[in-house]
Amino acid sequence: MTSAALRQPVRIGLIGAGRIGSSHATILARRVPEAELVGVADVVPGAASRLAGQLGARAFGSPAELIGADEVEAVVISASSEAHCELIVAAAAADKAIFCEKPMSQSLADADRALAAAADVPLQVGFNRRFDAGFAAARQVVASGGVGTPQLLRSLTRDPGLANPGAVPPWTIFTQTLVHDFDTLLWLNPAADAVEVYATADALVAPEYRAAGLLDTAVVVVTFDNGARAVAEASFSAAYGYDVRAEVFGSAGMVTVGDQARSTLAHYGAEGRRVDTARGDVELFRDAYAAEFAEFATAVREGREPAVTGRDARRALAIALACVESVTDNRPVAL
Amino acid sequence: MTSAALRQPVRIGLIGAGRIGSSHATILARRVPEAELVGVADVVPGAASRLAGQLGARAFGSPAELIGADEVEAVVISASSEAHCELIVAAAAADKAIFCEKPMSQSLADADRALAAAADVPLQVGFNRRFDAGFAAARQVVASGGVGTPQLLRSLTRDPGLANPGAVPPWTIFTQTLVHDFDTLLWLNPAADAVEVYATADALVAPEYRAAGLLDTAVVVVTFDNGARAVAEASFSAAYGYDVRAEVFGSAGMVTVGDQARSTLAHYGAEGRRVDTARGDVELFRDAYAAEFAEFATAVREGREPAVTGRDARRALAIALACVESVTDNRPVAL
Amino acid sequence: MTSAALRQPVRIGLIGAGRIGSSHATILARRVPEAELVGVADVVPGAASRLAGQLGARAFGSPAELIGADEVEAVVISASSEAHCELIVAAAAADKAIFCEKPMSQSLADADRALAAAADVPLQVGFNRRFDAGFAAARQVVASGGVGTPQLLRSLTRDPGLANPGAVPPWTIFTQTLVHDFDTLLWLNPAADAVEVYATADALVAPEYRAAGLLDTAVVVVTFDNGARAVAEASFSAAYGYDVRAEVFGSAGMVTVGDQARSTLAHYGAEGRRVDTARGDVELFRDAYAAEFAEFATAVREGREPAVTGRDARRALAIALACVESVTDNRPVAL
Amino acid sequence: MTSAALRQPVRIGLIGAGRIGSSHATILARRVPEAELVGVADVVPGAASRLAGQLGARAFGSPAELIGADEVEAVVISASSEAHCELIVAAAAADKAIFCEKPMSQSLADADRALAAAADVPLQVGFNRRFDAGFAAARQVVASGGVGTPQLLRSLTRDPGLANPGAVPPWTIFTQTLVHDFDTLLWLNPAADAVEVYATADALVAPEYRAAGLLDTAVVVVTFDNGARAVAEASFSAAYGYDVRAEVFGSAGMVTVGDQARSTLAHYGAEGRRVDTARGDVELFRDAYAAEFAEFATAVREGREPAVTGRDARRALAIALACVESVTDNRPVAL
Repeated sequence: MTSAALRQPVRIGLIGAGRIGSSHATILARRVPEAELVGVADVVPGAASRLAGQLGARAFGSPAELIGADEVEAVVISASSEAHCELIVAAAAADKAIFCEKPMSQSLADADRALAAAADVPLQVGFNRRFDAGFAAARQVVASGGVGTPQLLRSLTRDPGLANPGAVPPWTIFTQTLVHDFDTLLWLNPAADAVEVYATADALVAPEYRAAGLLDTAVVVVTFDNGARAVAEASFSAAYGYDVRAEVFGSAGMVTVGDQARSTLAHYGAEGRRVDTARGDVELFRDAYAAEFAEFATAVREGREPAVTGRDARRALAIALACVESVTDNRPVAL
Repeated sequence: MTSAALRQPVRIGLIGAGRIGSSHATILARRVPEAELVGVADVVPGAASRLAGQLGARAFGSPAELIGADEVEAVVISASSEAHCELIVAAAAADKAIFCEKPMSQSLADADRALAAAADVPLQVGFNRRFDAGFAAARQVVASGGVGTPQLLRSLTRDPGLANPGAVPPWTIFTQTLVHDFDTLLWLNPAADAVEVYATADALVAPEYRAAGLLDTAVVVVTFDNGARAVAEASFSAAYGYDVRAEVFGSAGMVTVGDQARSTLAHYGAEGRRVDTARGDVELFRDAYAAEFAEFATAVREGREPAVTGRDARRALAIALACVESVTDNRPVAL
Repeated sequence: MTSAALRQPVRIGLIGAGRIGSSHATILARRVPEAELVGVADVVPGAASRLAGQLGARAFGSPAELIGADEVEAVVISASSEAHCELIVAAAAADKAIFCEKPMSQSLADADRALAAAADVPLQVGFNRRFDAGFAAARQVVASGGVGTPQLLRSLTRDPGLANPGAVPPWTIFTQTLVHDFDTLLWLNPAADAVEVYATADALVAPEYRAAGLLDTAVVVVTFDNGARAVAEASFSAAYGYDVRAEVFGSAGMVTVGDQARSTLAHYGAEGRRVDTARGDVELFRDAYAAEFAEFATAVREGREPAVTGRDARRALAIALACVESVTDNRPVAL
Repeated sequence: MTSAALRQPVRIGLIGAGRIGSSHATILARRVPEAELVGVADVVPGAASRLAGQLGARAFGSPAELIGADEVEAVVISASSEAHCELIVAAAAADKAIFCEKPMSQSLADADRALAAAADVPLQVGFNRRFDAGFAAARQVVASGGVGTPQLLRSLTRDPGLANPGAVPPWTIFTQTLVHDFDTLLWLNPAADAVEVYATADALVAPEYRAAGLLDTAVVVVTFDNGARAVAEASFSAAYGYDVRAEVFGSAGMVTVGDQARSTLAHYGAEGRRVDTARGDVELFRDAYAAEFAEFATAVREGREPAVTGRDARRALAIALACVESVTDNRPVAL
């Protein structure tokens, strides 16, 4: 307990009351004492008032109204991805601190626009894995030299399934899913920069959507300027649940992180030993979500840059966009 | 999200601002939205005001004052063990809901006195392990027949070390430490009752306190009326941290639960593969503590009996006291 | 490769062609280059010739004939337990080296008789767990001080099931099964001696044989002269296979050893993560059986005492017999 | 025990008494009852006689002499890689059964030459991982549909270190090391064929040998005709030992296989939980080596094709050679 406990919680307005927005709002309202959820807005009529009502917050008629409200100190953006950049620009213009779900933008031009607009306000992007206890410990081991110089890295994401493949934009697997892994890989190889990308992808989970351009399975190789190679992998359908892991192999050792186990329980029977696996990102990363919001609120109160910046988001996006080019041309692409 | 979210949090006054009391107060204030920490009291002058100040709660001049305050709906008792029974009686007389750290009392007579006094108010005892995700899953497997009839059980507790052996009362290892394991064993063998106890104990960690009666290492065998046997084990000093595990072996399988790993990180180097181990009960059971308080507050609001009752505490205490007799007489003792 | 490879294999005659005898014979013939299986004998007509035929060995008409044969240098006794002592005496009289399955005898008097008879020949007893890579590594860590002074130990045995409960003598769980665990516990606490035993047992697997005196579930607490306590556990029926584990907790740390996993494979599906478990002692200890015979043959060739002696067997037996007394009288028994 | 036990062991001559040849000879002599090591040859004078002497076999003056000897039924080739093809041709001409260490040849033309020459004799190639219990179980799960259609695969090899980097030919990491992983990936995706390869490699372990063309770190992506993607990874220096793992993720689940643990022992202390890791291929794959030789000898006796064929070796080699082209041109290469 430090004097931080005496600080007033940061008054937060959340924009976007969909699946992840609802989860974020609930975590903000119930598990992050550094924050207070004061308002909710959504472009869908009714969504905001329903969520706000459940959590004792005010429902705003529109994102713009929420951004303009005096009682809102900081904005959490969990709207649909294509709206992120404009919302950042608007919130920054209103001098609000900003937490934006990944991806921060869809193009590097928009990323630059968002960064320029938010130059004078705190801006954090939702790379929640960095706040998981295991991932954070991995980073610490790497940063303290515990694996020597990283040489081979791996990061993967496997979702339990696509609710509605028809609604998924074509390059989502790179710009929305693997962008997490690209941030992880850059963050776990802190002394290096990515210089080349090779990506390959396919529609194996939902081949009927291939014609519409939906890719659901992808492998990416990233080459770094210090010679390290990283592999990122994603699938939109894992039969066993939600699977996020990483590995850093270096000149002096290795760290591995991520496990699907739901708890410490093992059950033995005629079929052998069985362990339940986690079924969703919220289950697997509940503590990490709370921790990223705590970091955001703390950074706002301390008037400092948050631990995950808009520049970090731009770096990860640059790799995702190079993947699109690599898949389109079937060749490695320099960054 | 249910309408529960709209309920007013239960206004809680905490008595006892020592190590575990401070941890409980912080968890109540920051991680349990169903509860609101409104007051703190302690017999040590200054302790209450320090803790209350950090958490924005009111410091009361004495436990009695806190118990009598109108703004206090429910009392959390984390005072020293010998005070528990009187505080329960006093709080019950003031018609407050009661959460009491284990042990509820030091004797069966006092247990009965506490139970009688609290007959008309909610009374929960702090067997936090039941609220750990792994332990709860183990219980669920057992209750649904996943191990068949339990035949051999195990529960163990190993602390990272004794801060002050001189201050530990002689039979603490049974009444304060193993009482957790006895509750676990009874709870994981729900269809049976304990009928006999054999205990053996020694001063191996701090032999210099043996003369003062301090026992720091113990093994207990509990025999149940359905023939099952359970082993409980405790040590007051584990070099590798805090270690709490359980195992239920039955006619159709086995569950094991509990793991010392601090996160999902594994670190590989010249020395092999290494996993960090948890160093304290609060680290290992943070979520479980929050969950037991959430259960308490919810039970209070719903006007129902909490999931862990005073009768449960009495059952576990009866085993602990039989252990004292067994060690003293070096023979199995019938319950 | 040392000059050991040039030595002539020890010519072994095996007595007792039952389940474990057949396994031993096969391992001796195929996986122990230091040994050569030259003969097989059994009291059941036909059993010896069948097994000998399969393995290219000679079938003897009787154990006595095998013991007396010049081409037999050493005898492996895997006959029924009650015959062990007489066979040791006979083999020693014929000046043969002797490997005897556990238990070496059924009474301490017979143990002494066997020890006296075999004073001048190599005598090894079949405590195979000592030769498992994991158990051997645990012993090494203990012996090198890696856990400090042992304080709490555990060893357990769970069989996949009783083929024929009606044929099992009453105290088998102590004298034949747990005798393994007693040897393990003594060996993993090398600086100490057992001084007291408390045992409790029941017929939970096959209650219909309770009247015949068959006990199939047991828990034992052993107290050592340095204050360490050890728990041994056994069950005659584990739904998930064969389960042998040990744990040594001491002043400076802990070792755990034993795992049921059949291989390094993990299989993930809708039911979670699954690992196959081993189904029998031979599967789990194949390498350990080969290693104990290699040790025996090497000791014979080098003219030295084997690593597991008849005195070790006597110590473990003494605990097993004290368990019988403890169960009979329901009290701790001094050794 | 089947009548197989009565068969005469296959009389084997081994060519190449280097590190792996010596290990193979010892395993053949001591752990493979289906085989008998009758001779050893090596181009280095003295090497053959030393090894043969240790194992009671005959030392031949030259490989040609061994191949020509009547008492040699089958030849195990563990000579240097560039000699493999000629030795296969010579042994086939002498009508001997042939076990050849991987790689079978250095070029596809030589592979075809070897295949043509050995058309009428049993020819097995040393992809030992297939005979590891875990890898074999993984294959069985895949083959029985346990993961559905494979979509993402991984196989990796990390050696504990290069004894003499100066002696390693430039493309070794693909043709000698990753060729194992390519075989594994083809074998674990049995219904598919590789159609494209992207490879990237560097000199990170021994950068001073980069100029000489030695690459010690590589990542390969293989695309299959059914859309599955596989990643193979290798490094010539792992600080923690020898690391071989594989993973098959498919439409219905996943299997993972391979673990570095040396035994079931875990050691807990102030530094946390520690597990020893295996330090060499022979330690990790001792049983697999014995099993591949047992399969070879059994196939010879049964007059059938062995489980790993020369055609399998050609398929894996084709991928390795495509990697060379991919690295040279920095682009994906169609097969």
